[in-house]
Amino acid sequence: MENNQFKGIISYPVTPFRESDGQVDLPALERLIDRLVASGSHAIAPLGSTGESAYLDDDEWDRVAEASVRRVARRLPVVVGISDLTTRNAVRRARFAEKLGADAVMVLPVSYWKLTEQEVFRHYECIAQAIGIPVMVYNNPATSGIDMSPELICRMIAQIDNVTMVKESSGDIQRMHRLVQLSDGRVPFYNGSNPLALEAFAAGAVGWCTAAPNIVPQWPVALYEACLSGDMARAREVFYRQLPVLQFVLKGGLPTTVKAGLRLRDFDAGVPRSPLMPLDEPATAQLRSLLERLDA
Amino acid sequence: MENNQFKGIISYPVTPFRESDGQVDLPALERLIDRLVASGSHAIAPLGSTGESAYLDDDEWDRVAEASVRRVARRLPVVVGISDLTTRNAVRRARFAEKLGADAVMVLPVSYWKLTEQEVFRHYECIAQAIGIPVMVYNNPATSGIDMSPELICRMIAQIDNVTMVKESSGDIQRMHRLVQLSDGRVPFYNGSNPLALEAFAAGAVGWCTAAPNIVPQWPVALYEACLSGDMARAREVFYRQLPVLQFVLKGGLPTTVKAGLRLRDFDAGVPRSPLMPLDEPATAQLRSLLERLDA
Amino acid sequence: MENNQFKGIISYPVTPFRESDGQVDLPALERLIDRLVASGSHAIAPLGSTGESAYLDDDEWDRVAEASVRRVARRLPVVVGISDLTTRNAVRRARFAEKLGADAVMVLPVSYWKLTEQEVFRHYECIAQAIGIPVMVYNNPATSGIDMSPELICRMIAQIDNVTMVKESSGDIQRMHRLVQLSDGRVPFYNGSNPLALEAFAAGAVGWCTAAPNIVPQWPVALYEACLSGDMARAREVFYRQLPVLQFVLKGGLPTTVKAGLRLRDFDAGVPRSPLMPLDEPATAQLRSLLERLDA
Amino acid sequence: MENNQFKGIISYPVTPFRESDGQVDLPALERLIDRLVASGSHAIAPLGSTGESAYLDDDEWDRVAEASVRRVARRLPVVVGISDLTTRNAVRRARFAEKLGADAVMVLPVSYWKLTEQEVFRHYECIAQAIGIPVMVYNNPATSGIDMSPELICRMIAQIDNVTMVKESSGDIQRMHRLVQLSDGRVPFYNGSNPLALEAFAAGAVGWCTAAPNIVPQWPVALYEACLSGDMARAREVFYRQLPVLQFVLKGGLPTTVKAGLRLRDFDAGVPRSPLMPLDEPATAQLRSLLERLDA
Repeated sequence: MENNQFKGIISYPVTPFRESDGQVDLPALERLIDRLVASGSHAIAPLGSTGESAYLDDDEWDRVAEASVRRVARRLPVVVGISDLTTRNAVRRARFAEKLGADAVMVLPVSYWKLTEQEVFRHYECIAQAIGIPVMVYNNPATSGIDMSPELICRMIAQIDNVTMVKESSGDIQRMHRLVQLSDGRVPFYNGSNPLALEAFAAGAVGWCTAAPNIVPQWPVALYEACLSGDMARAREVFYRQLPVLQFVLKGGLPTTVKAGLRLRDFDAGVPRSPLMPLDEPATAQLRSLLERLDA
Repeated sequence: MENNQFKGIISYPVTPFRESDGQVDLPALERLIDRLVASGSHAIAPLGSTGESAYLDDDEWDRVAEASVRRVARRLPVVVGISDLTTRNAVRRARFAEKLGADAVMVLPVSYWKLTEQEVFRHYECIAQAIGIPVMVYNNPATSGIDMSPELICRMIAQIDNVTMVKESSGDIQRMHRLVQLSDGRVPFYNGSNPLALEAFAAGAVGWCTAAPNIVPQWPVALYEACLSGDMARAREVFYRQLPVLQFVLKGGLPTTVKAGLRLRDFDAGVPRSPLMPLDEPATAQLRSLLERLDA
Repeated sequence: MENNQFKGIISYPVTPFRESDGQVDLPALERLIDRLVASGSHAIAPLGSTGESAYLDDDEWDRVAEASVRRVARRLPVVVGISDLTTRNAVRRARFAEKLGADAVMVLPVSYWKLTEQEVFRHYECIAQAIGIPVMVYNNPATSGIDMSPELICRMIAQIDNVTMVKESSGDIQRMHRLVQLSDGRVPFYNGSNPLALEAFAAGAVGWCTAAPNIVPQWPVALYEACLSGDMARAREVFYRQLPVLQFVLKGGLPTTVKAGLRLRDFDAGVPRSPLMPLDEPATAQLRSLLERLDA
Repeated sequence: MENNQFKGIISYPVTPFRESDGQVDLPALERLIDRLVASGSHAIAPLGSTGESAYLDDDEWDRVAEASVRRVARRLPVVVGISDLTTRNAVRRARFAEKLGADAVMVLPVSYWKLTEQEVFRHYECIAQAIGIPVMVYNNPATSGIDMSPELICRMIAQIDNVTMVKESSGDIQRMHRLVQLSDGRVPFYNGSNPLALEAFAAGAVGWCTAAPNIVPQWPVALYEACLSGDMARAREVFYRQLPVLQFVLKGGLPTTVKAGLRLRDFDAGVPRSPLMPLDEPATAQLRSLLERLDA
């Protein structure tokens, strides 16, 4: 299966909520998607971690998926995060995303109990077999509590037809080395750890999955282009310039900090859902200063 | 607020599912509760980790809560696990449990994103203020991804009216020491890590929250009674006898191993929900042998 | 080989250094040993971690070993720490200790490079075969960088003649459970983690290896006696009373805090060797207050 | 102080021991140094971790230091590892190295007890003030047990005159980012973690401290040259080619694997000192196959 349509900067929109009643704000989501498309992103990834998909109920999830795919309108490829605690609902979401016209789905093995390798494998297999579009394996032990080894990931890609690529968010560059070694360089991998962006490209990552374009769209694109052109001095410079913002959003939690950043950019995406709280005043001031320094 | 009604062995029933269609099996749940009451448990705790509450939808959750409280019928105190990803739904569940007649609710700060201490505090505060019954703080970093310090826990107990007790499942005995030190011995704490049962009682735990009574009901009770009577040699003997089973259920995952054990006890509670898989044949054989040795 | 001569409180004297020139102060060491013997210790263990053996040169080490064994003069059993980076020098020290009349030697697998299990095994084997007295395996990953599994420890005890007992300082009570399970309760184990003293006795530890008697001799003895008599309420009370001091000496480093404590007890043992620094004034004030509270 | 004389590939010779009696083999050491100089290394670093300095006695250490500096004979800059457990002996070694004509000394804060930041700072200060040549801070928590934060390292470089550069062996690329950020890119840093070589250069490392040139001298040099010329595709190719060897020597321990590799290269450097054991037959066969593949 061809899957090279995803490369470069894969942007993760937040899911805006209305200030008034906390409900999903679809018009704001559509405006945000337009901004991401307009500012140079190479793909759009709704309902990821940044999109607070874990905090949406099923009806909300469906509406966000539908609005996102429709709004991108094939201007860019779309990969929809369909993770759910039960295999049954993950399958339902995957089918729904495919029907909407998504180009791929992204799957994190969220769980309450630790899963065995066999359980993870079967979870991916059930989802993949239910659809005809590619599945992106998403490894993020910090949020999912499950750490998939490169060996397991490559085995799934080898043995399950439409599992074809992997987003590595563990932040461990050695994982990327292992993916290259185990697949002889044939498995496309994407970096999901913002402060690893420079080195992941050096190690051969095809793309960078990031929420940073919500607030500083030109910078991730500039890093990608410098790497693509082989200008490492420029790549290094561009990376260290944006690194403080990347560190800030990672440390403060993506929905919390990105929504605060959007407000500083005069875009109202509301605040994250409780128990998450809005970014407090001192941290917001710090973010403002980081953004101003980057804009200067 | 008085909260000394919980002490001794607090038993966690699994949530049985029907073999035929995977739906919740309420009659089996009622029979299981009767068994736990009859075999010496000192309290019943439905919808904990063992009860697969994370894998139930809201309607199922409500029906299990209702059936559980009604079936215990005040023969023993009941603490209902009401954890949910969003504060809003956790509050809804807490109110529902109170209305059913639960004696307390247990709250794990499950989350997708790491929560700050302030977010955890506010989550507990919102829940506690919505109800009039005691709240048991549940610390289990292995499943929730959030590790509450003894300092935070004691601060919540001191500052939020009906947050009154804590179940510690981190397996770290030093946490229990800190709880004693920070509260001058006044905060009742319960051990939730099976292989720490002996030492937790030595350190002053008021009770042991455990799923083991589903399959070996007399053994936890025997440990508690030996500790209560100060017979440490007997406590040690009773503990080491049951330790292999405790280690087995912890390592294999509670719903998976306890449901397999129930089947070995001729009680059909079905299998855990996908992505969880039933215990495989070799492991089941091992569990059978452990149970036989204990029964001998 | 009989090895039950070690039980109860095994006391670790510091190695006093002269204020004037930083040299080993043997007369002070002898006075300290007399105090430990007089105040109820059940065995003496010179040249352990507390004794700063790692910071002594070979000549100093020999003189401390000789003075210690001679001064105890068979009033109590003596176990000498003979750890060294090279197997050759560890063997030399073990032979020297045996010749002096030590009752046993204690061996920590200190190393610079991580050792394989085979390397650890051979290290112990070489030492044990060079002497005729018992070897106590000492597991302390925090200082040695090597964590020996209970399986490896029990294998060495089963296969190497005079390796007969183990001091567990990892602070992990589950290790003690494993030792009991793997040896069917036949391997004598000693707790080396001060804040685990209560629970280690509950789990079946034969003794407690500790530097606390240097400054609060009666308290460890009182805990041991309460546990021996099966009075768990008393044991708990005695443990929580001394716990703040135990936590303090663990956190601040044993030579540093114990030497400061000895000074507060009007015993001049000098200060630890550089790069270790003497306890600073605020921490010393805190220790003074903890000791006063315990003496009250 | 100027310190830019160190850049590129800084090679760490092993310390050869004679097969016959295990004594230091200085003629072999001199031949090895000649090979390293001849095959393109940019600096020589005797008595590092690879040089088994921890297992040498003082007399041996002095002779290896002297022979190394004399043999390099100013063909390349030399940095001598002078780490020791006590500050006193580290100072002695630093002075000795300076007198021999070393261009710099490298200091790892080896310790038995964890050191406070103040103790680490003073240790470096005492050493630096005793000499007039630059000090390279060496952070390697895996062998030293002490993890110096980038903040502490940069503070020492700012406040202690001739502490001027840092070798980071933690393998954590984020540490390098922090060093750049804290020093505004002015602190020269060297990578000491072999499998991080590609990304460390991408992040701005000035050099790579490595034992790999003992057995595959042209490959590290080729990586450095590709990075220097900005040819990332070539750098990536060269890196992934040598990565299996780098992973092998890291995992198996440097003295053990490099000495086995030297034998495969028909260079007799003996075996590492006990408790370290020679590489066993299956692992040696694996290394042979890795080297053959690289030579092909």
